[in-house]
Amino acid sequence: MQPKTAFQSKTVATDLVLPSETNPINNLFGGELLARMDRAASIAARRHSRRIVVTASVNHVAFNRAVPLGSVVMIEAKVSRSFKSSMEVYMDVWIEDRESGDRIKANEAIYTFVAVDETGRPVRVPELIPETELEKERYDAALRRKQLSLVLAGKMKPSEATELKALFE
Amino acid sequence: MQPKTAFQSKTVATDLVLPSETNPINNLFGGELLARMDRAASIAARRHSRRIVVTASVNHVAFNRAVPLGSVVMIEAKVSRSFKSSMEVYMDVWIEDRESGDRIKANEAIYTFVAVDETGRPVRVPELIPETELEKERYDAALRRKQLSLVLAGKMKPSEATELKALFE
Amino acid sequence: MQPKTAFQSKTVATDLVLPSETNPINNLFGGELLARMDRAASIAARRHSRRIVVTASVNHVAFNRAVPLGSVVMIEAKVSRSFKSSMEVYMDVWIEDRESGDRIKANEAIYTFVAVDETGRPVRVPELIPETELEKERYDAALRRKQLSLVLAGKMKPSEATELKALFE
Amino acid sequence: MQPKTAFQSKTVATDLVLPSETNPINNLFGGELLARMDRAASIAARRHSRRIVVTASVNHVAFNRAVPLGSVVMIEAKVSRSFKSSMEVYMDVWIEDRESGDRIKANEAIYTFVAVDETGRPVRVPELIPETELEKERYDAALRRKQLSLVLAGKMKPSEATELKALFE
Amino acid sequence: MQPKTAFQSKTVATDLVLPSETNPINNLFGGELLARMDRAASIAARRHSRRIVVTASVNHVAFNRAVPLGSVVMIEAKVSRSFKSSMEVYMDVWIEDRESGDRIKANEAIYTFVAVDETGRPVRVPELIPETELEKERYDAALRRKQLSLVLAGKMKPSEATELKALFE
Amino acid sequence: MQPKTAFQSKTVATDLVLPSETNPINNLFGGELLARMDRAASIAARRHSRRIVVTASVNHVAFNRAVPLGSVVMIEAKVSRSFKSSMEVYMDVWIEDRESGDRIKANEAIYTFVAVDETGRPVRVPELIPETELEKERYDAALRRKQLSLVLAGKMKPSEATELKALFE
Repeated sequence: MQPKTAFQSKTVATDLVLPSETNPINNLFGGELLARMDRAASIAARRHSRRIVVTASVNHVAFNRAVPLGSVVMIEAKVSRSFKSSMEVYMDVWIEDRESGDRIKANEAIYTFVAVDETGRPVRVPELIPETELEKERYDAALRRKQLSLVLAGKMKPSEATELKALFE
Repeated sequence: MQPKTAFQSKTVATDLVLPSETNPINNLFGGELLARMDRAASIAARRHSRRIVVTASVNHVAFNRAVPLGSVVMIEAKVSRSFKSSMEVYMDVWIEDRESGDRIKANEAIYTFVAVDETGRPVRVPELIPETELEKERYDAALRRKQLSLVLAGKMKPSEATELKALFE
Repeated sequence: MQPKTAFQSKTVATDLVLPSETNPINNLFGGELLARMDRAASIAARRHSRRIVVTASVNHVAFNRAVPLGSVVMIEAKVSRSFKSSMEVYMDVWIEDRESGDRIKANEAIYTFVAVDETGRPVRVPELIPETELEKERYDAALRRKQLSLVLAGKMKPSEATELKALFE
Repeated sequence: MQPKTAFQSKTVATDLVLPSETNPINNLFGGELLARMDRAASIAARRHSRRIVVTASVNHVAFNRAVPLGSVVMIEAKVSRSFKSSMEVYMDVWIEDRESGDRIKANEAIYTFVAVDETGRPVRVPELIPETELEKERYDAALRRKQLSLVLAGKMKPSEATELKALFE
Repeated sequence: MQPKTAFQSKTVATDLVLPSETNPINNLFGGELLARMDRAASIAARRHSRRIVVTASVNHVAFNRAVPLGSVVMIEAKVSRSFKSSMEVYMDVWIEDRESGDRIKANEAIYTFVAVDETGRPVRVPELIPETELEKERYDAALRRKQLSLVLAGKMKPSEATELKALFE
Repeated sequence: MQPKTAFQSKTVATDLVLPSETNPINNLFGGELLARMDRAASIAARRHSRRIVVTASVNHVAFNRAVPLGSVVMIEAKVSRSFKSSMEVYMDVWIEDRESGDRIKANEAIYTFVAVDETGRPVRVPELIPETELEKERYDAALRRKQLSLVLAGKMKPSEATELKALFE
């Protein structure tokens, strides 16, 4: 199976924040943003694997900045690392200022997807080749996150999580 | 006011077709696609003008190809020509095949937006500079479409629609 | 196949504008209106043909007047002309004032539908017989619009678009 | 205040049943139909009173017939009787067969609305004049329903509900 | 078939009121509440019968109190009485004050469901055993409501509605 | 400020999976579940703090089990630990089998909320007192998760994350 670059899975989803998508204080409702990110990330995972993909986990999403009604929101999703049949997708979410055109980072998010066949069984996916500095950084961190999630799920002993352990030494 | 290229307003909206967005024969519901295009096109118009924009008209949308449930749909919108306070936005809509990754053109669409101030009064927008061959072609055709819509609205005599008239000579 | 009057396909869709259907300046969101018109027009086309119908194109929609939150909106759709397997549907959209009960025209729109069988192949539809003055006017103009769309799609030479050509002479 | 006929409040809402509006067995979801009827009935009450109206109660809705995916549904709402500041709205809901064009009654429903001013206080509404046989029948029954709902709410003694009592003698 | 207590079908649905669910005066839209209650009540009926259930009727819903944007709304649904294949579900709807945590009753509602097999034919459901005082009261009233609805539908002579008749003597 | 038990914030949100909420393989769409959990968790945080709350982060969500169309889904949310102005909310999501009534764990999820005043500034929240074994376990783990998220955000040195470090020794 031919390895692929992160760029090959890049997915851009640009959209507005309309009143039906806000919370009572007129910012984009958190749940709506989570849903939009799920849609964008699943497209990136599909572009990497060319398979049916299902959301396996949401690893971390920090809502650093409220997204006000009327904003333009840009979600950029790229696969950051692939394992046997799973793919970690890293997203950057930007708000675009209407007058200046400047983009402010609203938040980052990490979702994991699994590629499956028609019967729902996991299938192998291509390796991911990081190219830019940022892609390499996220690629390395993905392994630590993978170990962390195995440790937290009780499927790996902390002592075996070598990458993660190194962080605390 | 600094003229702008078409590229500067380029807006990409990539999204899935979920069951809640289909018609009874399991294709993307026409009205849903019209709404998604309105969102994407209005962002392009906003990027060109950096103003509040309102939909003035939908000039033409041909649904050449049904978009099946589960597809990835990519809308690419760019301002094709600007007039005093209005902007024509040209969209190309693509369906992406999951297995091959190939993109098929699903349809093209043209919407017109007007830039307004907070009180709703039209304001001037920057000139549009077409760069590629396709952008130039669409730029030229935009004038004929403008004349056509003025003729159809009874605001211009057919004899004065010089660009349009030339077509039939 | 028995010809039918425009009246026989008349479809009235009366509805409110609730907060979830507005844009950031509290008017009915353009995309939502496009979707509602698609629903109403497809019912009119279905009533004329008694067949499955799919949206073929949106020929022209001018948003002349914003529709404020809380309005009552009335869409009235009628088939304006039929061709072999396609039908042009003409819509008038009205806003109703709550206090006076007066109706103001918000916009007109023209959509085209194709009647298909279960396998998606186009099937013949009945002829349309216009009765009122307005129906006759729209019936005649429908042919010019048909020619125009064929010319724009490069499927008819401008010189053969006799009805349209006459406009510019 | 000028009395009004039932006809003056007549509201027709014609719409499709799309996949996003169905229950797991592919019929129109009950809650969705209740919501559509609320929208249609509130427009009828508004047309009668020319006031802001709020739903006061849903008196009875019998779902006699499932409405399958892809149906055309027609809701016809008319004020059946008005009291001081409240209005009973009677609805007939029809399903239209695509092939024959025949209409089958799907269900009837009765909602009650109260007209209020901007501060939410009830205001008087015009009297309702029934014209047809059916309108008269519903007008008479509305009083019995009104008494019944007062009795059930403990706001009227059964012995004072003269209209209702007569039913059981 | 083992009888069941009302408690065994108890269903709690707690949710927010977001902007997309309000009417033009910023309270929960009546139709949205009707839909939420339909969902909660159908779960209670399903828990009692362990069958597919379909909404048969909405017997009475009084909107005594507007539910403002941003509220927490709690719907509590329990089967109040079962007949051969139908179940009456009684709901209490509460609004929770954010600051004090107090709960105010917003309204009560009664829906009726029928249990069906895969082909849509009614099937028997377990008997309902009321336990608390309130459950017993609602159980008794359910029979009167059943008779009333048969009388109103012309399927029972008023003289045979013994429970109901007693009310007016 | 009076400390509170986890039980005091317990929030139950029971709901159906309707067709409009599914993905192309007829299971509950991941984004929709994320949104529902956000609604339930924010109510729990509000019940603990009696303040306006905003979603700060989604710490971990594992989708262990697909939730099929037509399921009953029960989200149970409780505050698991509070810090100065933030609260970790732990959720258990259950699917209920229609025929047996058995509940299967579909997934667990952890969201963090911040309590704010009307101007959006963080305000103090009551302490959380865990009572059951499970509540105590989650309370302890919450501190490690807090440290982890500070480390990942670069706001705490790994060497200072004493609780977390202990895991790897």
